[in-house]
Amino acid sequence: MQRYFVKNSQIRGNNIYINGLDYHHITHVMRMLPGQKISIIDEMGVNYLTLISQINKKEVVLEIISQSEFNNELPITVTVALGLTKFSKMEEVIRRITELGASQFIGVEMERSNLRLNKLPPLKIDRWELIVKEAAEQSGRSQLMKISPFQSFPSFLEESSHYDVCMFAYEESGRQNNFSLKTLLKQSNYRSLLVLVGPEGGIAEKEAQLLLERGFQAVGLGPRILRCETAPLYLMSVISLMKEFIDEG
Amino acid sequence: MQRYFVKNSQIRGNNIYINGLDYHHITHVMRMLPGQKISIIDEMGVNYLTLISQINKKEVVLEIISQSEFNNELPITVTVALGLTKFSKMEEVIRRITELGASQFIGVEMERSNLRLNKLPPLKIDRWELIVKEAAEQSGRSQLMKISPFQSFPSFLEESSHYDVCMFAYEESGRQNNFSLKTLLKQSNYRSLLVLVGPEGGIAEKEAQLLLERGFQAVGLGPRILRCETAPLYLMSVISLMKEFIDEG
Repeated sequence: MQRYFVKNSQIRGNNIYINGLDYHHITHVMRMLPGQKISIIDEMGVNYLTLISQINKKEVVLEIISQSEFNNELPITVTVALGLTKFSKMEEVIRRITELGASQFIGVEMERSNLRLNKLPPLKIDRWELIVKEAAEQSGRSQLMKISPFQSFPSFLEESSHYDVCMFAYEESGRQNNFSLKTLLKQSNYRSLLVLVGPEGGIAEKEAQLLLERGFQAVGLGPRILRCETAPLYLMSVISLMKEFIDEG
Repeated sequence: MQRYFVKNSQIRGNNIYINGLDYHHITHVMRMLPGQKISIIDEMGVNYLTLISQINKKEVVLEIISQSEFNNELPITVTVALGLTKFSKMEEVIRRITELGASQFIGVEMERSNLRLNKLPPLKIDRWELIVKEAAEQSGRSQLMKISPFQSFPSFLEESSHYDVCMFAYEESGRQNNFSLKTLLKQSNYRSLLVLVGPEGGIAEKEAQLLLERGFQAVGLGPRILRCETAPLYLMSVISLMKEFIDEG
């Protein structure tokens, strides 16, 4: 069934009011008609089964048939931080980690970032939020991923104290296998995870030192060298396997 | 160190001869000079440490300093089959699964493919092989991924008999969790794995039935619905985690 995320303000009484891009999608792309069913998810993750009751010039009116708490989310929250890199690469990461269940995305200014916080191209938060909404609708998420404001490296280090477990993908340290990703993911005593992937040029040695001092774990992602836009997908995939699959022996 | 794959025919005696795109890359992109070191891998996966001894108008001549058997490959071979879909999506999959260690890629004509074998756009095998070579060089692979000719679904079913374990990503079956991906990957009694991901529209019920009859296992990739270009990356990532990381308890 077609699925859309709505703001709570669009729900009034027993009806849900759809306008803008979703209106266009329902009427022009999907060419739906009154009587057809649509699945709606509000900002709290509540799922509504609805019927189209009216299609006006600028608005689709839905009637709520039933509601349920539905949950396709990972059992832990995962925040993905990525060293600032080309916007096109960041957009691809945002799209894919939404599909793969991430809770939050943070861009971090790092030594080898080819973008600087004080010289950013025009931000496209609206565009990015649209990418998140589409990817969440298509993949059947019950929550939207949050896009946080970009951060400097020092403020990112501060921020990390809010998470139960913090790790960063580090080729050098990873090779020495000083802390295996698999072992870390097997542990069950945490609810929130922060993972950092460096920008295209990687994480500088000094940054790695500061991360370790802050209690981050350095993890390797296998013997091959992954691009900065592939590493977050690797991490989200293995987190899903280790947290969403029951061990059957 | 900069790394290039070469044909065995480029190695003669104690020298390796580089021309074409790699010549351009070494001289114009990397602007390397005689005396600098380059890592070379031949068709058998042998790794050569070399020095640039001459740069001519059309050729770089390398001198072999030492050679070693080096191996960054997965301990099992993984063949990724994808239902024929837009070339741009297939190219993205080819690039990323090369990075992630796949041995082979096969495009398969399936019921919901929007491309037909008898009406294909011009093939771009040269372009795809270049994508594989670049991705393998960047990620530090010791082997190139092979791109197989496209296959019809019946001939793909035949082909599957060559693999120890065959599986396909299937949302429906996955939900019932009749065979968990994690359990399957934990087993150690196989050397070759074939994974099939359907085209954009998914795998048709009849196709799923035929796959099951052929001994394929249906596996789910978590509760969310992944795009056809994301699912192969999920599979390759979790295969790496389960096959390349030692269980530390």
